[in-house]
Amino acid sequence: MLIPVILSGGAGTRLWPVSRSAYPKPFMRMADGESLLYKTLDRALRLADAGRVLTVTARDYYFLTRDAYAKHPDVHLDRLPFLLEPAGRNTAPAILLAALYTIEYISKNATLLVLPADHLIGDVDAFAADAQRAQVLAQDGHLVTFGIPPTSAETGFGYIRMGAPIAQSGGREIADFVEKPDHATAEAYLTSGEYAWNSGMFCFRADALLAVAQSTCPDVLAAARACHAGAISAESPVEYARETFLAMPDISIDYAVMERAKNCAVVPASFDWSDIGSWKAVSELETGDEPDAAGNRVRGSTVVVESENCFIQGEQRLVAVVGVKDLVVIDTGDAVLIAHRERAQQVKQVVEQLRESGHAAARFHQTVHRPWGSFTVLEDGADCKVKRLTVKPGQVLSLQLHHRRSEHWTVVHGTAKVRVGDREFLLQRNESTFIPMQTLHRLENPGAEDIHLIEVQCGDYFGEDDIVRLEDRYGRVGKT
Amino acid sequence: MLIPVILSGGAGTRLWPVSRSAYPKPFMRMADGESLLYKTLDRALRLADAGRVLTVTARDYYFLTRDAYAKHPDVHLDRLPFLLEPAGRNTAPAILLAALYTIEYISKNATLLVLPADHLIGDVDAFAADAQRAQVLAQDGHLVTFGIPPTSAETGFGYIRMGAPIAQSGGREIADFVEKPDHATAEAYLTSGEYAWNSGMFCFRADALLAVAQSTCPDVLAAARACHAGAISAESPVEYARETFLAMPDISIDYAVMERAKNCAVVPASFDWSDIGSWKAVSELETGDEPDAAGNRVRGSTVVVESENCFIQGEQRLVAVVGVKDLVVIDTGDAVLIAHRERAQQVKQVVEQLRESGHAAARFHQTVHRPWGSFTVLEDGADCKVKRLTVKPGQVLSLQLHHRRSEHWTVVHGTAKVRVGDREFLLQRNESTFIPMQTLHRLENPGAEDIHLIEVQCGDYFGEDDIVRLEDRYGRVGKT
Repeated sequence: MLIPVILSGGAGTRLWPVSRSAYPKPFMRMADGESLLYKTLDRALRLADAGRVLTVTARDYYFLTRDAYAKHPDVHLDRLPFLLEPAGRNTAPAILLAALYTIEYISKNATLLVLPADHLIGDVDAFAADAQRAQVLAQDGHLVTFGIPPTSAETGFGYIRMGAPIAQSGGREIADFVEKPDHATAEAYLTSGEYAWNSGMFCFRADALLAVAQSTCPDVLAAARACHAGAISAESPVEYARETFLAMPDISIDYAVMERAKNCAVVPASFDWSDIGSWKAVSELETGDEPDAAGNRVRGSTVVVESENCFIQGEQRLVAVVGVKDLVVIDTGDAVLIAHRERAQQVKQVVEQLRESGHAAARFHQTVHRPWGSFTVLEDGADCKVKRLTVKPGQVLSLQLHHRRSEHWTVVHGTAKVRVGDREFLLQRNESTFIPMQTLHRLENPGAEDIHLIEVQCGDYFGEDDIVRLEDRYGRVGKT
Repeated sequence: MLIPVILSGGAGTRLWPVSRSAYPKPFMRMADGESLLYKTLDRALRLADAGRVLTVTARDYYFLTRDAYAKHPDVHLDRLPFLLEPAGRNTAPAILLAALYTIEYISKNATLLVLPADHLIGDVDAFAADAQRAQVLAQDGHLVTFGIPPTSAETGFGYIRMGAPIAQSGGREIADFVEKPDHATAEAYLTSGEYAWNSGMFCFRADALLAVAQSTCPDVLAAARACHAGAISAESPVEYARETFLAMPDISIDYAVMERAKNCAVVPASFDWSDIGSWKAVSELETGDEPDAAGNRVRGSTVVVESENCFIQGEQRLVAVVGVKDLVVIDTGDAVLIAHRERAQQVKQVVEQLRESGHAAARFHQTVHRPWGSFTVLEDGADCKVKRLTVKPGQVLSLQLHHRRSEHWTVVHGTAKVRVGDREFLLQRNESTFIPMQTLHRLENPGAEDIHLIEVQCGDYFGEDDIVRLEDRYGRVGKT
């Protein structure tokens, strides 16, 4: 029995401004309109036993992740258990919790296939074939990792020195795990043919993993057992107590288990792979949109004048470049990034600076996703704030009030069910209503299509923390 | 009697996206918050006889120009006649019309000081002193131009080869006018010390100009006389019939008069001067904001990571640059420009491409100025359009209706007087009203402070041409 485990709790910073902690890289859409997370689920479902896939993610991404999964035609959401992390931890805690959950609630004999949600793999058939090889090795008790044959002297990855072939498996023993090398060493690895990138994808029997962890990292395993045993909710979505969760060490599965284990194996990947670690990597993806004669690849509304080798990704605004080369230009509603292609790794420094200065653009986009839909800030002025709200079919916002603002709602698409004070009524397209300050209100979409609504807030403070929630379907009472 | 003549009808393209034809370069604000036009008026008023300044501008810029002028503390708008061009023409027609108007309505003996509205001059005292020298030469019958001592081998300007000094005047004869040179020639001009840039500023007696024009370009003068004689309105704002206006040849005053005249003189400028011909020129202005250690000069919300010698001008959005150098980045509400500093002249190619494709960003900004104030498009969707309107005190929009949209208005600042159908009422801050499709309506600001109003349009077409105007204070009935 193969259970894919999707890890999607992390939030990298190198793909800012598209990836931000409130809506990180796994949710980023590729040129074909599919998110990385969706593509990962798709790979997982091809291999999953009875459509069962386990997901370990941050509590904040639960609704977003379910929404992304729900779009898949073959999905049965009730066969997709979620383990929700109350805070960011590393991969060892996440994977050990997944193993403990699987053994207790699914099967003692399950094999886990661990898949980070932010990898891109083009050839899913080749991936499936390699995963089958890994599964066979795992059933023999191996802890299997996937090694990516290097295509360049990357200094940003750990490497695996591959050992002797394991008979009739397609896999090899692991001679050594090596840290991120310097450039010269990476060059040597590349030419030797004996090294592979450590992809961060794994395959092992859940019981074999726990047995090895008992010897390589008994403290981490004990903390994970305590966290698992003390779960607030044992049924999906599984919620863990913050204290016992944070009591687990912040350590990767590589350090905690793989590098200290004796029975590891590597399956050299026969598929193409990218962890999309930077905008340079995105710009080099084979996406189907051909570069122009000067090597520029553009998306969105752009004007390119005598420029070379640029990657431009726009949204609604016009981006014009004149006489430049080797640039990556990423335009979003509230921020634009202009980076040299070869310096794209340093985008994380932008996010660090934004965090230090407390700038919201480090975390949030102009469009903010909520369990019920999303909102986009159209204007954030001294005297008003204007938002466009999208409410998904069947969803309902919390029953709430504001102390420092009143709101004017105009429905521009769909039909809303609105409560204002004690009155409840339908608001059709081209109708508006007024919600005075301090007045309880609620917005619901009883229909089968999205509602679009323009909200004009009047007041002297427009922060998200001036929302007093009295009832909330999504468990946000007392939270912002 | 010295009459400054401000020429502000043109619309360059090299400062896109800040300068666009609907709100061109003269209205662009410098770092001190003043527009080039305002600064030009300020220079003019220091020299004008009895505060009288003539302005030749495009009909479309009339209200904008008056608004810009009205901010000057020493201005008397009734002493500022306007000549409104119904279409773009060159400088010869504009200046000849100004001369004809001056002689007929102001004084037969007036001396004109012609000032393009998009030049930047820092030392206004030095300018005033040079203008006095020019005036003395003009009273002797000279046609005087101002020559700028070159500071670099510019290939974008015409040059003047200076001749013998004219005794006791500070001026020199003009040996020759020379076309825009190639780089080597420009270098030679720069080192010789005998050449000056032809600034496009002039000083001459109105009657002397007409006398010379009678011999150098009798056809242009005859067409100008016909246009002047057939003016639709002879009082300010003077409006010309389109046909007689367009019958004037499209020719510069340099070609039509100066280069063929025998009695020209040049006053070498003792003031600093820039025609702000490109973003490179803007980036090099002494604006008071010091560059950082790496030579970057930034305005607005920016994050700069390991970048050099960049000029970044942002508005509301965040601009981040990583590992780049020598870039000019200009961010506006609906468009962002990224240009190499040394290629900034080619920004005009962006505008050409936009025009060819019919893109609105070639002409309009996200904020569009109107006689009554301005509007900013916050959202332009399939199902609605959202605008923020600003109505200036005492102003009133036309009495109008729309066939294909209804409107929801919410006042967020000030108090509006609103007519909807037959009803007229006040709309205070935090109040809203609804204007059904096909219903006459009007918005007025009876108060002493700006009104800010959020307009949500619902319908299936939101173009500016779906405005049926029944009455309009600004003469726009039947126009968009």
